Amino acid sequence: MAATVTAEWIAVDWGTSNLRAWAMDRDGTPLAMRESDKGMGRLKPDQFEDALLALVGNWLDEDRITNVLACGMVGARQGWMEADYRAVPCSPAGSDALLVPGTDPRIRVSILPGLMQEQPADVMRGEETQIAGYLADNPGFAGNIVLPGTHSKWARIAGGEVTGFSTYMSGEVFGLLSKQSVLRHSVAGDGWDASAFRSSLRESLAEPAAAMGGLFRLRAESLLHGLAPDAARARLSGIVLGLELAAAREHWETGPVVVIGASGLGKRYAEAIEVAGGKAEQIEGEGMTLAGLASAYNQLHGGSK
Amino acid sequence: MAATVTAEWIAVDWGTSNLRAWAMDRDGTPLAMRESDKGMGRLKPDQFEDALLALVGNWLDEDRITNVLACGMVGARQGWMEADYRAVPCSPAGSDALLVPGTDPRIRVSILPGLMQEQPADVMRGEETQIAGYLADNPGFAGNIVLPGTHSKWARIAGGEVTGFSTYMSGEVFGLLSKQSVLRHSVAGDGWDASAFRSSLRESLAEPAAAMGGLFRLRAESLLHGLAPDAARARLSGIVLGLELAAAREHWETGPVVVIGASGLGKRYAEAIEVAGGKAEQIEGEGMTLAGLASAYNQLHGGSK
Repeated sequence: MAATVTAEWIAVDWGTSNLRAWAMDRDGTPLAMRESDKGMGRLKPDQFEDALLALVGNWLDEDRITNVLACGMVGARQGWMEADYRAVPCSPAGSDALLVPGTDPRIRVSILPGLMQEQPADVMRGEETQIAGYLADNPGFAGNIVLPGTHSKWARIAGGEVTGFSTYMSGEVFGLLSKQSVLRHSVAGDGWDASAFRSSLRESLAEPAAAMGGLFRLRAESLLHGLAPDAARARLSGIVLGLELAAAREHWETGPVVVIGASGLGKRYAEAIEVAGGKAEQIEGEGMTLAGLASAYNQLHGGSK
Repeated sequence: MAATVTAEWIAVDWGTSNLRAWAMDRDGTPLAMRESDKGMGRLKPDQFEDALLALVGNWLDEDRITNVLACGMVGARQGWMEADYRAVPCSPAGSDALLVPGTDPRIRVSILPGLMQEQPADVMRGEETQIAGYLADNPGFAGNIVLPGTHSKWARIAGGEVTGFSTYMSGEVFGLLSKQSVLRHSVAGDGWDASAFRSSLRESLAEPAAAMGGLFRLRAESLLHGLAPDAARARLSGIVLGLELAAAREHWETGPVVVIGASGLGKRYAEAIEVAGGKAEQIEGEGMTLAGLASAYNQLHGGSK
């Protein structure tokens, strides 16, 4: 028998693919978490409220209004309601939120805006809340943070603000090439060859101009010389990540980089940065979005910490 | 009422997506052409013969054996029968062909092998026959040829031989990014902005390291600054083609390049080479495969020209 939970407020991480909600108590501790696959990508604007209430409805106190604070793609143009980007340099989250009008009287939903950079043009939605979570635990931090993912974000932090950032589609490019291009035959499986990854990364970083030639070579070496799929897969990753590191040089050449994510892709980024000659500090990413939502909630509603 | 055609021999261009056959007369003139969508990609090894006979069966003289000479992916490992690659430097086609055993007694099918390069590893199947077609008309040619396509091939020619070549997946990369990545929203349609293409190409060529950063910027500029889809599309092409030209520099920096293909992609490559500071000569590509098949047939069977 599940205990009944009543939320003081509700924190929501609403991305393209997933919806995750936490019932929070007064002092910012999560009492319960629920998630569903009702990501922004599957919903029309008028379906967001039902998806949310289906998940958190019985956390609500029927006698008062419960605040809901959400971050992520829920605030995109194709989301529930567009929350305009805030321009960097600015604090990652907490100075502003968009109130969604006309919702169920038991809830009061606010959406955290994403960040934008005028020149070179760039945007993020969701990662800024992770950054806020990191800064909540490391208030004096100054330096660079990378959030690896489908679209990896590298951000420069100073004085509690994001002063600039850049996005690389390497994750998506690797996914398309390894699953949908002619290379899929050569990189099949999910094995890994660490030494092939490192040497390919070094080459790509040293000579980015050669990257496009390195791609088909994987196919040719596989046909002619029996290149192993694990090595081909690792080399493909090295080519793509080498191009990313070549472009993001300013973020890792000047000092250590905090890599959000302790395993998988985070580990690969940390390794890549070290191979390139930089320094990486890996940080567990689980809980960072929640910490950022809690920090933003405290700033917006003056709640106790 | 269609006139009855009897082929002296049959030329076949059999790629991944399409099958095209010509009824040839004694002096190498095509009498008729037929095509179908029975490309190698849709056939199992035991289905090739039926696909061929369905197309050319009534061109056959029942009283004698008709030679069939095919090129392209029909000779790949997943094709009708694997025709081993010939190693460069070598003539593009005509010195060798694989006889397919056990076919219908009315036909005698041979497949032209593709070309391979040991180091850096590379392969081609089909393009070598186009090169042979070009050389049949330009027997003294020495220089570089580019065959734009999903996988573009740049080849160095000297003394009637292909001395080296390199393949770039730019066409496939552009297709995946423009149709299946997050950029598809920003580059929709099929418009074009020639000036955006040229400046993006120049940037990508001058600083290949920045390419990966330029990709997501198209999305961000589209969201923030209303970048027009035509300009975004042209810039994407410029980024990808700039990376290719940076890698293929040795092929266009030393002298003029013959671009096979008079319109569409051929035109874009010719423009890219000129913008990069090279010289391009565009050649009509239609008929080049047939000319290569005819030239190879003459060498193999000593037929009259």
